Amino acid sequence: MLPNLTPDVALAEQLFAELRARSFDGTGITREAYGPGERMAHALLAEAGDALGLERKVDPVGNMYLTLPGADRATKRVILGSHLDSVRQGGNYDGAAGVLAGLAAVAGMKRAGFTPGRDVTVMAIRAEEAGAWFPTSYPGSRGALGTMRPEELQVKRLDSGRTLAEHMRDEGFDPGFVEAGQRAVGPDDVAAFLEVHIEQGPVLDAEGIPIGIITGIPGSRRLRAGRVIGEWNHSGATPRKYRRDAAIALADLAVAMDEAWCLLEARGHRMVCTFCVLATAPEAGFTKIPGEAHFQLDVRSVNLHSCDALFEVLYDKVAEIEARRGVRFELGSEAGSRASPMDAGVQAGLVRAAEALGAKYLAMASGGGHDAAAFAQAGVPAGMLFVRNQNGSHNPHEAMRMEDFAVACAVAQRFAAEYGA
Amino acid sequence: MLPNLTPDVALAEQLFAELRARSFDGTGITREAYGPGERMAHALLAEAGDALGLERKVDPVGNMYLTLPGADRATKRVILGSHLDSVRQGGNYDGAAGVLAGLAAVAGMKRAGFTPGRDVTVMAIRAEEAGAWFPTSYPGSRGALGTMRPEELQVKRLDSGRTLAEHMRDEGFDPGFVEAGQRAVGPDDVAAFLEVHIEQGPVLDAEGIPIGIITGIPGSRRLRAGRVIGEWNHSGATPRKYRRDAAIALADLAVAMDEAWCLLEARGHRMVCTFCVLATAPEAGFTKIPGEAHFQLDVRSVNLHSCDALFEVLYDKVAEIEARRGVRFELGSEAGSRASPMDAGVQAGLVRAAEALGAKYLAMASGGGHDAAAFAQAGVPAGMLFVRNQNGSHNPHEAMRMEDFAVACAVAQRFAAEYGA
Repeated sequence: MLPNLTPDVALAEQLFAELRARSFDGTGITREAYGPGERMAHALLAEAGDALGLERKVDPVGNMYLTLPGADRATKRVILGSHLDSVRQGGNYDGAAGVLAGLAAVAGMKRAGFTPGRDVTVMAIRAEEAGAWFPTSYPGSRGALGTMRPEELQVKRLDSGRTLAEHMRDEGFDPGFVEAGQRAVGPDDVAAFLEVHIEQGPVLDAEGIPIGIITGIPGSRRLRAGRVIGEWNHSGATPRKYRRDAAIALADLAVAMDEAWCLLEARGHRMVCTFCVLATAPEAGFTKIPGEAHFQLDVRSVNLHSCDALFEVLYDKVAEIEARRGVRFELGSEAGSRASPMDAGVQAGLVRAAEALGAKYLAMASGGGHDAAAFAQAGVPAGMLFVRNQNGSHNPHEAMRMEDFAVACAVAQRFAAEYGA
Repeated sequence: MLPNLTPDVALAEQLFAELRARSFDGTGITREAYGPGERMAHALLAEAGDALGLERKVDPVGNMYLTLPGADRATKRVILGSHLDSVRQGGNYDGAAGVLAGLAAVAGMKRAGFTPGRDVTVMAIRAEEAGAWFPTSYPGSRGALGTMRPEELQVKRLDSGRTLAEHMRDEGFDPGFVEAGQRAVGPDDVAAFLEVHIEQGPVLDAEGIPIGIITGIPGSRRLRAGRVIGEWNHSGATPRKYRRDAAIALADLAVAMDEAWCLLEARGHRMVCTFCVLATAPEAGFTKIPGEAHFQLDVRSVNLHSCDALFEVLYDKVAEIEARRGVRFELGSEAGSRASPMDAGVQAGLVRAAEALGAKYLAMASGGGHDAAAFAQAGVPAGMLFVRNQNGSHNPHEAMRMEDFAVACAVAQRFAAEYGA
């Protein structure tokens, strides 16, 4: 039924090389959200889209859509997309792989003279690495989907001190679109959103499998500004019974949480628990008993009941440690997100495509959050394909093999060609 | 036999007020070692010594000696001394109390027309808070005693980046004295060195006793640059079994050391164990599993076998945690010091003086290190008197009641008047 479609992986490879050359900062890849690096990447993609003869549109918050028209232009389209920004001194593939996979899929269709049943759109999303630049989640995709609250435009970039709205305006976009509650895409006009992304973890590599079909994106419970208040004292002159040591109290909590996580996993919970920051206050130093310590805690699971179970342990331990060590914990405000199951129909479509192509895959939960979660929460059927990667992500050593990427491109292409047909 | 001697506590009080007024930095007291704050304090003391008609000398490394001549000028003298520098944003009494106690004692002798049997010298020592300014111990007293190694002159002040020798020269002193291996004081000419000092801990306050007679100054084993090397990974995407979390590994070690300390104390060891710094590396942040963490460890006891017992636990635990968590510990170079028992004759003299005056005292070990340790290690009979204090030391809230200080001054005065008579 389908012609002998193949993705244009060579085109993607060439664009990866261009992106790397233009955003290597001496240590790693830096493509600032709503800044010069992301602007460069969008310009490069626009050029590539024009060269392929794709329809090009940009929405008021700066996301770009490159569309191969389908036979029936009135029916809902399929979007293949991801983001083009990166963390500071990150890698070249986190985000860009999903955009270039979409482009490779569509370019391959063009090359084969294939007209899909419905429009297939490559979407280059803005500012997914929000945590690295703006303290909010998915302003690009949620701006397009109309699910961003206007007050989120006022969050400030940590380094510049200027707001998201100001940075949007600097790049020529219109935050008024968000304030007016408008949207560029949604469940009414999108049949499926598929995001190809590097795994960002070691599972596929360790298991020897090139791609993963994602079952869901985890929700989280997070403490970004936890503190332990004890008492600064002289480390030589203060016997054990007179101490209120904030560092040992925090170490106690971390070890207790780690043990509880281990036990919950043994009982079948699937989750992660990380003290991303665990540190005595800056004034700590030799001959002082730490009087203050700080922490950031990140607990995630596709099943939020698992996060809740670990937070119950947290509350119990905090009270116990406070009583035993004479310290006080300030947990600060809690942030978090709902879990986002991936659409069953999209997962089934991906399984069919992978099996038709003879591609080995693993059904797995995502570890990190992704734009696909914003689509799922806006009611758009969403799915993800992970590509095996090496050396983690968000660091300059992040890696991905082109043969694995090619498998993901082929599955994404077949999915887009067949979905809902 | 002795006239009705009393110390001139009012003079000390007036000088405490002057010192505070001239070294309060808006938050606490800052008197930089070999810097403007210490220079100011020495100038103030010189003025006070001149006003009392004491003989004044300054040795080539900057320590000042204010001497009340005794009846027999050829016999060994008694020194009452401590330091005048402070940590940054510290308190007014740590160090200064010992110098002003000596001055109050000698001023009281003058006022009473009392001539001691031997010279009594008030010594204002340089740079005792070396840990806060220069990474070496007691350069002032050891410079005077001829026990400093010339290479120690090359240690650099962390903030200025300049060497101890350079800072000495800036203040008009001569590091060549140390290089030439000379000394200004020693066992040949000093019968006893007595240092009055605030306790820096809560024991006397908790026990309701104004002064302590010190049995010894603890030795230590110290790691100032410990590191744990794990692997930076994505906190969402890295399941438990693939992690090499440096922060949890360090928390494990800290909790294990704390438990071992508790057990050793139950078996009769007397010691302290402090992780003064315990911190993820600066690049730690949200969504990252910490790949590196740092620590500083301070273990002290008057009995070095107790320190050794705890370090045995350290080595065992490090190996166990490395194997279990896939991390690597780098302990860095170890520093430390021998314990310094206080002289039995000096202790007996202090007990006699306290009992003659009806002063309640506690025999106790010091917690911190002090210049008296340098004198003891150079072979000078040394002793210490602690004054009850509140709110610890090395912080702006450090406190001391004048009535407790007056008791210490009276005991020091009587000791100096009677010692070896």
